[in-house]
Amino acid sequence: MIDEVTMKLRAEELIRMALAEDVTGEDVSTSAVLKEYKFGEADLICKQDGVIAGMPVFAHVFTLLGEGAYVRALVKDGDRVQKGQLLAEVSGDMRVLLTGERTALNFLQRMSGIATYTAELVRLLEGSGLRLVDTRKTTPNMRLFEKYAVRMGGGGNHRFNLSDAVLLKDNHIGAAGGVKEAVAMAKAYAPFTQKIEVEAENMDMVKDAVAAGADIIMLDNMTDEAMKEAVAYIAGRALVEISGNVTKENVARLKTIGADVVSCGALTHSAPILDLSLKNLHPVDLDEALFGAEGE
Amino acid sequence: MIDEVTMKLRAEELIRMALAEDVTGEDVSTSAVLKEYKFGEADLICKQDGVIAGMPVFAHVFTLLGEGAYVRALVKDGDRVQKGQLLAEVSGDMRVLLTGERTALNFLQRMSGIATYTAELVRLLEGSGLRLVDTRKTTPNMRLFEKYAVRMGGGGNHRFNLSDAVLLKDNHIGAAGGVKEAVAMAKAYAPFTQKIEVEAENMDMVKDAVAAGADIIMLDNMTDEAMKEAVAYIAGRALVEISGNVTKENVARLKTIGADVVSCGALTHSAPILDLSLKNLHPVDLDEALFGAEGE
Amino acid sequence: MIDEVTMKLRAEELIRMALAEDVTGEDVSTSAVLKEYKFGEADLICKQDGVIAGMPVFAHVFTLLGEGAYVRALVKDGDRVQKGQLLAEVSGDMRVLLTGERTALNFLQRMSGIATYTAELVRLLEGSGLRLVDTRKTTPNMRLFEKYAVRMGGGGNHRFNLSDAVLLKDNHIGAAGGVKEAVAMAKAYAPFTQKIEVEAENMDMVKDAVAAGADIIMLDNMTDEAMKEAVAYIAGRALVEISGNVTKENVARLKTIGADVVSCGALTHSAPILDLSLKNLHPVDLDEALFGAEGE
Amino acid sequence: MIDEVTMKLRAEELIRMALAEDVTGEDVSTSAVLKEYKFGEADLICKQDGVIAGMPVFAHVFTLLGEGAYVRALVKDGDRVQKGQLLAEVSGDMRVLLTGERTALNFLQRMSGIATYTAELVRLLEGSGLRLVDTRKTTPNMRLFEKYAVRMGGGGNHRFNLSDAVLLKDNHIGAAGGVKEAVAMAKAYAPFTQKIEVEAENMDMVKDAVAAGADIIMLDNMTDEAMKEAVAYIAGRALVEISGNVTKENVARLKTIGADVVSCGALTHSAPILDLSLKNLHPVDLDEALFGAEGE
Amino acid sequence: MIDEVTMKLRAEELIRMALAEDVTGEDVSTSAVLKEYKFGEADLICKQDGVIAGMPVFAHVFTLLGEGAYVRALVKDGDRVQKGQLLAEVSGDMRVLLTGERTALNFLQRMSGIATYTAELVRLLEGSGLRLVDTRKTTPNMRLFEKYAVRMGGGGNHRFNLSDAVLLKDNHIGAAGGVKEAVAMAKAYAPFTQKIEVEAENMDMVKDAVAAGADIIMLDNMTDEAMKEAVAYIAGRALVEISGNVTKENVARLKTIGADVVSCGALTHSAPILDLSLKNLHPVDLDEALFGAEGE
Amino acid sequence: MIDEVTMKLRAEELIRMALAEDVTGEDVSTSAVLKEYKFGEADLICKQDGVIAGMPVFAHVFTLLGEGAYVRALVKDGDRVQKGQLLAEVSGDMRVLLTGERTALNFLQRMSGIATYTAELVRLLEGSGLRLVDTRKTTPNMRLFEKYAVRMGGGGNHRFNLSDAVLLKDNHIGAAGGVKEAVAMAKAYAPFTQKIEVEAENMDMVKDAVAAGADIIMLDNMTDEAMKEAVAYIAGRALVEISGNVTKENVARLKTIGADVVSCGALTHSAPILDLSLKNLHPVDLDEALFGAEGE
Repeated sequence: MIDEVTMKLRAEELIRMALAEDVTGEDVSTSAVLKEYKFGEADLICKQDGVIAGMPVFAHVFTLLGEGAYVRALVKDGDRVQKGQLLAEVSGDMRVLLTGERTALNFLQRMSGIATYTAELVRLLEGSGLRLVDTRKTTPNMRLFEKYAVRMGGGGNHRFNLSDAVLLKDNHIGAAGGVKEAVAMAKAYAPFTQKIEVEAENMDMVKDAVAAGADIIMLDNMTDEAMKEAVAYIAGRALVEISGNVTKENVARLKTIGADVVSCGALTHSAPILDLSLKNLHPVDLDEALFGAEGE
Repeated sequence: MIDEVTMKLRAEELIRMALAEDVTGEDVSTSAVLKEYKFGEADLICKQDGVIAGMPVFAHVFTLLGEGAYVRALVKDGDRVQKGQLLAEVSGDMRVLLTGERTALNFLQRMSGIATYTAELVRLLEGSGLRLVDTRKTTPNMRLFEKYAVRMGGGGNHRFNLSDAVLLKDNHIGAAGGVKEAVAMAKAYAPFTQKIEVEAENMDMVKDAVAAGADIIMLDNMTDEAMKEAVAYIAGRALVEISGNVTKENVARLKTIGADVVSCGALTHSAPILDLSLKNLHPVDLDEALFGAEGE
Repeated sequence: MIDEVTMKLRAEELIRMALAEDVTGEDVSTSAVLKEYKFGEADLICKQDGVIAGMPVFAHVFTLLGEGAYVRALVKDGDRVQKGQLLAEVSGDMRVLLTGERTALNFLQRMSGIATYTAELVRLLEGSGLRLVDTRKTTPNMRLFEKYAVRMGGGGNHRFNLSDAVLLKDNHIGAAGGVKEAVAMAKAYAPFTQKIEVEAENMDMVKDAVAAGADIIMLDNMTDEAMKEAVAYIAGRALVEISGNVTKENVARLKTIGADVVSCGALTHSAPILDLSLKNLHPVDLDEALFGAEGE
Repeated sequence: MIDEVTMKLRAEELIRMALAEDVTGEDVSTSAVLKEYKFGEADLICKQDGVIAGMPVFAHVFTLLGEGAYVRALVKDGDRVQKGQLLAEVSGDMRVLLTGERTALNFLQRMSGIATYTAELVRLLEGSGLRLVDTRKTTPNMRLFEKYAVRMGGGGNHRFNLSDAVLLKDNHIGAAGGVKEAVAMAKAYAPFTQKIEVEAENMDMVKDAVAAGADIIMLDNMTDEAMKEAVAYIAGRALVEISGNVTKENVARLKTIGADVVSCGALTHSAPILDLSLKNLHPVDLDEALFGAEGE
Repeated sequence: MIDEVTMKLRAEELIRMALAEDVTGEDVSTSAVLKEYKFGEADLICKQDGVIAGMPVFAHVFTLLGEGAYVRALVKDGDRVQKGQLLAEVSGDMRVLLTGERTALNFLQRMSGIATYTAELVRLLEGSGLRLVDTRKTTPNMRLFEKYAVRMGGGGNHRFNLSDAVLLKDNHIGAAGGVKEAVAMAKAYAPFTQKIEVEAENMDMVKDAVAAGADIIMLDNMTDEAMKEAVAYIAGRALVEISGNVTKENVARLKTIGADVVSCGALTHSAPILDLSLKNLHPVDLDEALFGAEGE
Repeated sequence: MIDEVTMKLRAEELIRMALAEDVTGEDVSTSAVLKEYKFGEADLICKQDGVIAGMPVFAHVFTLLGEGAYVRALVKDGDRVQKGQLLAEVSGDMRVLLTGERTALNFLQRMSGIATYTAELVRLLEGSGLRLVDTRKTTPNMRLFEKYAVRMGGGGNHRFNLSDAVLLKDNHIGAAGGVKEAVAMAKAYAPFTQKIEVEAENMDMVKDAVAAGADIIMLDNMTDEAMKEAVAYIAGRALVEISGNVTKENVARLKTIGADVVSCGALTHSAPILDLSLKNLHPVDLDEALFGAEGE
């Protein structure tokens, strides 16, 4: 979750850097015309159907810039949204709204794009028991946000990074001298709390991986036939992951393989954004906002 | 350019952070099986036709991890590349190559994806004199890399951020009380070295902008007719930018408007990656590598 | 402006670093004698006539150290102040006031010194239409504060740094092969939102710069006669900047050149501080402070 | 000293930040016209008589930007230099020289200005045994450089910050309940390796400070008569510091007071820069540079 | 003191880093089962007799993670505590309590361990006038916390680091050419506010140190006899420090040497932790917590 | 491993901070007496029997300070060393050796102390098949170094932090509503690559954990009888960890429980340092060092 703890310890600095990337000195345009505090409001509108992800990040951009800024969210992460829908009302110093708008949308659009794309693939796998997960093919310095967005789209996460699980690929196996040797070395070396996954290219490797006690076996570049055979052989002794250029065009055929997990790099490296817009930014008389228009 | 200066002052820290995002402790898999220095080589292969961008960044990932790492580039940024083409040879400690592979590719694939998409649109505008530029709709903390990739695809850059040029949008104009007032305030406030751009929604605003001495006028959400009329009216007294959901499907019709510049957010927010791969990573006997195989 | 946004994104870290430079462990003297919270007040007094700049920075030093600190400013940046004048009342934990005093004054004195010096030169140019601007000859890591101070003294800003405008000097021109070539290369390379300035040393260069479409021409080391001739030739086709060891002793003669802008490095590199002092720091009984002395 | 250790641990980051302040993206002008490595040289020339300080900092600016940059210094810090004198030859990639020039000079000019101003005051005190020292009235984030410059001008340093020595001012004394109490509290609290200094405003305080065992007594705002009386009373039982708006105009009269140390804020807060210039930057044919011009 | 100022300027960043070391992504266990805010409370219990140090640090861990977290301390730093004693009540979002627990205890246990060990040695020296101080043998990046803990245990501090006092060891003396030369060079070089300490290995060095005017003389590796002789010779002309593998087993015999200060590295490098525990963490109904259980 | 990659990405910054903690300005003592480069050598000597850990960190302290520094290690991490043994020869600028000595030893002594303590416990468990691992009870900001030291002592690592494995404690289980619910929620939430561990306090919880498919079951505060019963029940269906105030005094009795892993906080929170010393630092004539003494 991007809750208060994760926001403070990990997300906030990245958000602050993104703002600093966009404001190396000051927002000259806004400074030129808005020399005093002026309360304003704006509407966050959806311009495409999709799944939303990143509302707390969107809000944090504004609160980092100005303590009085406030985002009243009308949807929450993971919700399906529709073209034209009002997603949130943003209020605060108009200067803060103007300066933060682009950065806030850059986060929210990308995260929602990933959630939307993920949700499409998840729907295509419905009923199969095959779980869709992401990869490490994320945008540099965006992994926290992108992996969270995958979850909000209904997907799951593969390992977060190179330090939190073992995945032995062909080169690791080659260096170790074989699958069994590699798994043994990993068991001896890695914290006992980590699972060990082996990337297998053929049935011999699958058999060795099972024999060595691998926790997960990834079937890499195998034919559907071979994958089914491998699944049958493994027979629950390890989790089975399948992989390889999965997209929404080709994912459905994987439902019958019998694997546990399918990983898909496209979720994070090639999902287009979800188009969102901050509309109707306008100044508001604070007295009126707080106490209502004077009648009669 | 991402030359030595820009790399050291601005890019290196972002690259280092991306690596740290992927290695929060150590690369457990690699540490488990490769306990000593082992020299190795790998090939960077293109899996799709496209335009390459980010070779110095790709190389810097490895040299940041290990001083002996070396990338022999066979292409340079901006070059067109073809499916199957060998783009570079990477050599160094196999542990460095294994640990850096994913981060290096994550940068290069995204940047090359942007360059490739940009090049497509540039080609569609060929002969029109209309210059394609990017926007601030970039991935958070990737702007340096993404705007550079646009240039490598043959596009140009709009302002880098909120601090290096003035762009007066409807809310700025509203706050100032009108186009003329906004431009006057910006001229009084901004460094005299900065251009002042006005976003105009109709002919009245165009006329006011010209009268006020705006350097650039952006025609926003106008019909083709209205844009042509505006270009005729402006008649070179300001640069003319056109904008609005430009994609490769719809960009061609803009060639006849007569504008100077067309800006396109999709270049950076929705270009899919260019598929690249590090193949054939293998250990090499250093003696042999340096002195050749012993002949007869 | 050093408003809330700029303070948070850019100024705060520099202020925090300045405090950390002065407190590498703790303020030993204060810790030794003030072991508990003690509310206190002090007066910020002006000891010289001048122009004030940096009140928000002065205040932020104290609020960074202690959340309860408060600076009640009686003047605002840009105001003329007189010897003996009370500029602000500072209140909060006496330990915070004692520890922050020097750093707060170091910022405010230097910024006000620059504003004061700038205001003197601006006055000497009054009525001439010649605008006084600063240069990049600022104190390392103080540019944000110093360029702001110039504005508060009535001056304007030249480019903020090497990234936000093009200024082609003799070496750039030499490398390009001539003024025309250099301007053409800059137009092709720089974002179209940036102005291009050329440093011209003689009339031939001025003519080439005009022909090439330079936005600004800086007349460098020319005689008054030559400068007037250049201004006449340019005739509004570019902005004209003049430069070169401008001080308050020699600035007045430049009023008749007809240039648009005069830049002056001394504003930021050689202005003496404005002498200010935090006086009359004394403990206050909080009950009394909040509820008034109990009278009879 | 700003030796290798201090440079790496403390100075380098400040230099890097100063460069980043001047290059928020890239040096657009230089990138536009110099697209390839081009070796060049330039001369660092003195434009005023003075004392030089900061040569290692000047050099480090260039080596931080480009590893091949080299500064051949012809003078060393603390040397007196004369108008027109060649101080150093700078060589390396012309892009590095162009981009680093301003930042390098900004450091060197300010540091040399301080050294020059200090040397003038030191000369005025010659023969008196009175040692001139600086204060904490330094430019924020420049203290390391400015205090070093004072030393290079022949002055000495007062405490570096609030953490490395105790200085009990009127408010500390008031909080403690008197000079004796304050010194006793400081002796109990501070590391036994730190000296304890008391700011005394009259003879009673001087007497109390001596009685309490203060290591240093600062005579603050006393008449010359009172200071002489205090010196006579102290009679070597503590070091005596005198202070208060010392400038080159008024420092000489302090020679007869008999104090050990005089501190002067103007050294760091109001010294004008020493005017220096990087001249004659020109490309050099590397072959020729390395092997000499080919003779007949 | 670790008061508000020291916390903000120096401690907070280290605390934040320690938390980030323990949460590289998110606290997966807590996120999995606690998906919403849930108010909770826990008790900080002492499991051994000892002296407490670090309560503000313990509390700050939680408040850094969640603004609503609150630690009601029932003891203050320096207090003796007993096995089974309730030291504090911690309340806030249960997720914050769960995530922060380990880091908070890691700080508090270590700091309290040092305070406890120090208090034992201080007690053994009671009545002797010999002051126990720490050394620079602290855990990397924990010096601020560890030196503070020594004070809370009743000890004093030696110099904080290499920059705030002079200590001339054998190699410094060798490089200078002798004790007298070394002290003279240090007096000429160091700020006049710093004390100069000499490490003496025999009576000749002691005599030279006194003659040279050293402020402190450390007797290194001398027999008790030799130390007593040295103390007699010095006779108050310098402070006398003794040193060398002091532990609670051997410290008592040093009481009769007549020295002023004894330094002990074991205080910080080998004190075991004080065992503490966060017990009885349980959810609380906020309504009930605020308004009490509804009575009849 | 603390190899080149881990050093650069994770360890170096902590080492640099530790040095900066010790050098807030400069090493005044060394600067005072060593004003020029002087080549020197020193010997790293062991003063106690033990196991060494941290040689690359020790060496990196010096190479960070001066590029010419070099540590010739005669032992490698994990080696048993004996009192009096020469462990390494350190050479370089004497100023670098003097300034870095304390920080280098502070790392090495602590890490070796942990390795030594770990090795003692490992020896006590020899032949039992019970693996000794560490906990998260590490010194703040030292976890990387301390967990590595445990491995060098022959121990293994538990999870590195809260993000890389799931450990469900009583509060997590309480929040979820029971062991089965907690495990189910963790399986749904955590990356499928992470193991799920349950802390069980009695047989019912053990049974639930097995039924729910926990990967690891920690037996917490159970009697030896109960633990044996649990092990028998689990029968290899999950790894079994035992825990609770393990020390070298009480560890041996755990050999017969039949568990897989025993975790021990004391390894990192209460191991005393291993005493090491840098001896015989002396200047060396570089000519002589390089070319040998001139013979007759």
